[in-house]
Amino acid sequence: MANFLRINLSTGETTISPVPDHYAGLGGRGLTSAVVAREVDPLANPLGPNNKLVFAPGLLGGTACANSGRMSVGAKSPLTYGVKESNSGGQAGGHLARLGLIAVIIEGAAEEWREVVIGPQGARVAPCRLIGLDNYQAVARLREEFGEECSTITIGRAGELRLAASSLALTDLDGLPSRHAARGGLGAVMGSKKLKAIVIQPGADRPPLVRPNDFQRASLEFTKALNEHPVCGQGLAEFGSAAMMGLFNEMGSLPTRNFSKSRFTGYESLSGESLNQLTKSRGGQGRVAKGCMTGCVMRCAGVFPDKQGHRIGKWPDFETMWAFGPNAEIADLDAVARYDRLCDDLGVDTIDVGGALSILMEAGVLKFGEANEALAAVAQIGEGTPLGRIIGSGAAICGRVYGAIRVAEVKGQALPAFDPRTVKGQGVTFATNPQGADHTAGMAYAANILSGQVDPLGVAGQAELSRKTQVMAAAVDALGLCAFVSFAFFDSPKALTAVAEMLSARYGWPTTKEDLDVLGQKVLAMETDFNRRAGLTEASDRLPEFFQSEAVGPDGATFDVPAAELDKVLKFDL
Amino acid sequence: MANFLRINLSTGETTISPVPDHYAGLGGRGLTSAVVAREVDPLANPLGPNNKLVFAPGLLGGTACANSGRMSVGAKSPLTYGVKESNSGGQAGGHLARLGLIAVIIEGAAEEWREVVIGPQGARVAPCRLIGLDNYQAVARLREEFGEECSTITIGRAGELRLAASSLALTDLDGLPSRHAARGGLGAVMGSKKLKAIVIQPGADRPPLVRPNDFQRASLEFTKALNEHPVCGQGLAEFGSAAMMGLFNEMGSLPTRNFSKSRFTGYESLSGESLNQLTKSRGGQGRVAKGCMTGCVMRCAGVFPDKQGHRIGKWPDFETMWAFGPNAEIADLDAVARYDRLCDDLGVDTIDVGGALSILMEAGVLKFGEANEALAAVAQIGEGTPLGRIIGSGAAICGRVYGAIRVAEVKGQALPAFDPRTVKGQGVTFATNPQGADHTAGMAYAANILSGQVDPLGVAGQAELSRKTQVMAAAVDALGLCAFVSFAFFDSPKALTAVAEMLSARYGWPTTKEDLDVLGQKVLAMETDFNRRAGLTEASDRLPEFFQSEAVGPDGATFDVPAAELDKVLKFDL
Repeated sequence: MANFLRINLSTGETTISPVPDHYAGLGGRGLTSAVVAREVDPLANPLGPNNKLVFAPGLLGGTACANSGRMSVGAKSPLTYGVKESNSGGQAGGHLARLGLIAVIIEGAAEEWREVVIGPQGARVAPCRLIGLDNYQAVARLREEFGEECSTITIGRAGELRLAASSLALTDLDGLPSRHAARGGLGAVMGSKKLKAIVIQPGADRPPLVRPNDFQRASLEFTKALNEHPVCGQGLAEFGSAAMMGLFNEMGSLPTRNFSKSRFTGYESLSGESLNQLTKSRGGQGRVAKGCMTGCVMRCAGVFPDKQGHRIGKWPDFETMWAFGPNAEIADLDAVARYDRLCDDLGVDTIDVGGALSILMEAGVLKFGEANEALAAVAQIGEGTPLGRIIGSGAAICGRVYGAIRVAEVKGQALPAFDPRTVKGQGVTFATNPQGADHTAGMAYAANILSGQVDPLGVAGQAELSRKTQVMAAAVDALGLCAFVSFAFFDSPKALTAVAEMLSARYGWPTTKEDLDVLGQKVLAMETDFNRRAGLTEASDRLPEFFQSEAVGPDGATFDVPAAELDKVLKFDL
Repeated sequence: MANFLRINLSTGETTISPVPDHYAGLGGRGLTSAVVAREVDPLANPLGPNNKLVFAPGLLGGTACANSGRMSVGAKSPLTYGVKESNSGGQAGGHLARLGLIAVIIEGAAEEWREVVIGPQGARVAPCRLIGLDNYQAVARLREEFGEECSTITIGRAGELRLAASSLALTDLDGLPSRHAARGGLGAVMGSKKLKAIVIQPGADRPPLVRPNDFQRASLEFTKALNEHPVCGQGLAEFGSAAMMGLFNEMGSLPTRNFSKSRFTGYESLSGESLNQLTKSRGGQGRVAKGCMTGCVMRCAGVFPDKQGHRIGKWPDFETMWAFGPNAEIADLDAVARYDRLCDDLGVDTIDVGGALSILMEAGVLKFGEANEALAAVAQIGEGTPLGRIIGSGAAICGRVYGAIRVAEVKGQALPAFDPRTVKGQGVTFATNPQGADHTAGMAYAANILSGQVDPLGVAGQAELSRKTQVMAAAVDALGLCAFVSFAFFDSPKALTAVAEMLSARYGWPTTKEDLDVLGQKVLAMETDFNRRAGLTEASDRLPEFFQSEAVGPDGATFDVPAAELDKVLKFDL
């Protein structure tokens, strides 16, 4: 049905084989985490040859299902030292799936820099002459050589330098490296294997369907549910993922000045509305509502133009907007767009790098609000200066080097744009998710803030909410769907049923939405098991002390969900 | 009998009280670890106000017992994130004991820099105007103000900067800050509390003895055993702790070029013999055989003169000699002495800083063998430059920032001067000790190399040997004895019996040498318990992967003691 491709960089050998029985029924994050849990020594050095770098499109990857082209990238993380699944849009996920590949597993490590080319004729390992180039230039060269139809996965100089916050760049619909498997430092794993680039030459075929008509019906139903949802069908396309900046600020959930406040006076200039208006007013290459991958109907990925209308980069995601905006007290949309472009080019996670910057600002090395100085510091990442390396190592390591106390991280990974004291369901997820503090690990804020079903400041119900959303996120990642479809799942049971039906029609497995729940639970259980063997205990399922001792907001909120509640969240009867 | 002194830096309050019942019978490391285990939240930020910094002389502290003046300093470590006892010679341990204090506990954190003055009249907290000064200058100022009889505990600029490899400096017999509680970054804990200095004005009295005559008899017996032992009575005084440099090189146990080799061609210029000869030949202030504290009969602490005969600093310890010598491929005794002096002044651990340097050399940032360049880099620690901060954060953090794979550390603390592949008993101790890789946590090398009782390259017997020596080291640290007395304990049962008798005569407790064993076990069990609650599991009781995969020496040795053996080492029936 679908195949495994193993590429051993120590030997140069490539092997295609059917899916081993013990991995049957898994895809995306389910598969990357399963391979890591089964095949990687939990005590292996994440940057050593015994780590594996796993790429897996989701179970619905390559099909006509809307927003199903996400790619999961997995390994033992050099940032968290636990299991990592880093998830990205872009074209590569769909391309792999259409080549009949459900997993590409990179093993060993090369002695000299290499690139891998995967296409309908198989895979090969070749010398790479792009070393020292950042993503935009490297990808331009690859596309010259391999054609405009290919998609690529590359690392910039940050990954070459094996920095713990480095990302992998995946090309978008325009063939630009704007989509990133950013979290957890997997770019450093790719760099440690001396693999600079993967080129994927697409095959023509969609994956086979067991019951094509059922699939098509369910697919239309799903697309309809997305289109009818106010966020999925309209908000994201108009305002990008920063759509809710104003609401989050209003709710006091927008971490500001390195998590010392939870509202930012300058938030309006960074809102989705500002992004929309500025893009339209500048015209040129600027564009509102663009997908990052084939089959996207939500289209949160605009094109950001400079004052002359030339493309700077993509629309910065909400997390990026926050990391270089409120948390650094920079109220300058152009500066954020330059930050986003720079991080995409160097190949680093905007969240962890932003966390490092705000720590350096608090330490007096940089200044809050000073965008140009901060951008110059980020540019040092590529040069490998000591400061650049510290920043490129992310918030937790930066915090240690600077003897900082207010370091917002869990399991070594920087906290995303929600204050856990004022959106406590999100706080529970940041604390307990096996990936470390992660913005796509479960969208409790939907119930805490958007629907208000669970009081964001209360303790009651947060553990259950977090569990439910974490399970859903794990299933979504295993299916290869974009995290934002969850908005529709929360509000429209039909959307989830349609996805279960597509899975059933694609593979012939009788699947209900309860089965999707079990799938999500299984993924989380595998990940937790790996982490335990790697030495991450329940003590690592905690937020930093300052979230309990420092209050924010008019209500003087602290994070007060008891440890015993946290420890229940991911206990499953499987 | 003896008192607790608690100093709350948040309030400025000082309190003297009798020893609480639950701490009865403990001293030195036994007490520092007990206080940390009982009073510090295992998930507290080590640099936050909820950590405590505990000073405790040993159970025999202040008495006439030879070499009994050691000081234990404890806290949750910002380097290992577990419990830490860092042990130092110098005068402060004996001085505290003679003031009738068995523990000084620093709590909270000051807003402005403070110094603490402890004397026969009690303790007080005062503003400190020595900020920005390194140890030598700060101590000179304190001695001007408080007199030549006082002893001091200070931090240099590294501690002020809260760097994870920073130490506390204790003054020696000459009133110079040459003795350090160096390991585990406790200088950063002192800095995080804004405490620059502790001044101890000595009281006149030795602690009371329950049976003075018995004590004196046992004390003479112990001194005799030390004097008659070839290492304790002669080797250390003539050649310092580097006495065995040649033997360790011969045995292929001397980690060289960042642990990539285990013998150093230039070892002879760094031997104890060279140290002795050079000191004698230069005359002037140079001096062979000097104790670091009152009552030392082993006297490993010479005075190192420059070419003009002026004091550079103390004789570098074996570990320092190794860290800036073989492991950095620097065969220059004068350079090592300058390194030692610089580290003493800045207040950093020579082992962890040396580990960072050798990693930077392997990364190409510095060059192996280039002493001046390395010294200039170390000097940057005090300036707080990004590179200086990285170096002052120690080997593990430096390794992460530079994406290094060959990083010799356990629990975040750099490995000392024994290759675990060729002295496997020592390797077992480095892996399993609750303190992280530690040179005073158990001297398995005595049986592995000096006596040859346990084949250093074999697996058999290493776990038992490590356990026995770790238990002895914990007891020695609880008693306040210098680690080097263990050489006598190994060879002369009388020495150990004499110590048990002194303890009995001091306190009236019936004590046998078996009781000392139980004491050591209790200390290790408390420490392990704290670490488990802090999230350090058996997965942290492992050596880095490269010691298993990279062989050294003509025999192609790797570290192959099975994990199951490691997990047995510190399991006690208490």
